[in-house]
Amino acid sequence: MNNDEQAIRTWLDDWLRASAKGDSETMLAMLTDDMVFLVTGQPPFGRKEFKAAWDGPMKGAHVECKAELEECTVSGNMACTRTRLRVVITTPDGKASRASGYTLSVFRKQLDGRWLLARDANLLTPEE
Amino acid sequence: MNNDEQAIRTWLDDWLRASAKGDSETMLAMLTDDMVFLVTGQPPFGRKEFKAAWDGPMKGAHVECKAELEECTVSGNMACTRTRLRVVITTPDGKASRASGYTLSVFRKQLDGRWLLARDANLLTPEE
Repeated sequence: MNNDEQAIRTWLDDWLRASAKGDSETMLAMLTDDMVFLVTGQPPFGRKEFKAAWDGPMKGAHVECKAELEECTVSGNMACTRTRLRVVITTPDGKASRASGYTLSVFRKQLDGRWLLARDANLLTPEE
Repeated sequence: MNNDEQAIRTWLDDWLRASAKGDSETMLAMLTDDMVFLVTGQPPFGRKEFKAAWDGPMKGAHVECKAELEECTVSGNMACTRTRLRVVITTPDGKASRASGYTLSVFRKQLDGRWLLARDANLLTPEE
């Protein structure tokens, strides 16, 4: 495993830790300025909508996530990953929702060497 | 627009033309050997399953697709695209199904200079 792949695996560990705590400030710092999230059934959205979700409906939620990085391919300052995820989100009222599936993500290496998430296609579906 | 981006736009035009005709042979030649398709609600699949779909349920279908390449980023031998799609599939029995949404795709440049599709996350949802 080369340094870039190792850095992206560390990015994922950091992300899971931050999302478990609902630490949106840390998560926002891990995204490019022009971040685009793609999910089914709604238009692409960026940092602003991501922040609004964590400040609103997701506030105080407990997020438990198991992630397996199935592949990571690096070319120049761009990397592409496929990750298998299982997520349980528990809102402060105790209601739990489960989802599982894949993400296809694109990372960009910054001039200072850090890798940030730039594009994310989220294919997770709710579990009964 | 540089040559690589132009080549990927041409790839998309060729793909739309081939899928409209149900020309799976041409489409298969436009995919890397290790192609991975990601869709919601089922495991990732590759060339074999893609071919089986076009030889089976999709056989004789008429596919009408409007595609807008919203962005294309190239780094070394890898490129990432975001495409907005609206698709109408009409099966030989005359039944039409509509879907719209986005794809996030990763292309890889081959040693001979051709760009092939390598990863594709399909976030389209059915339209009523």
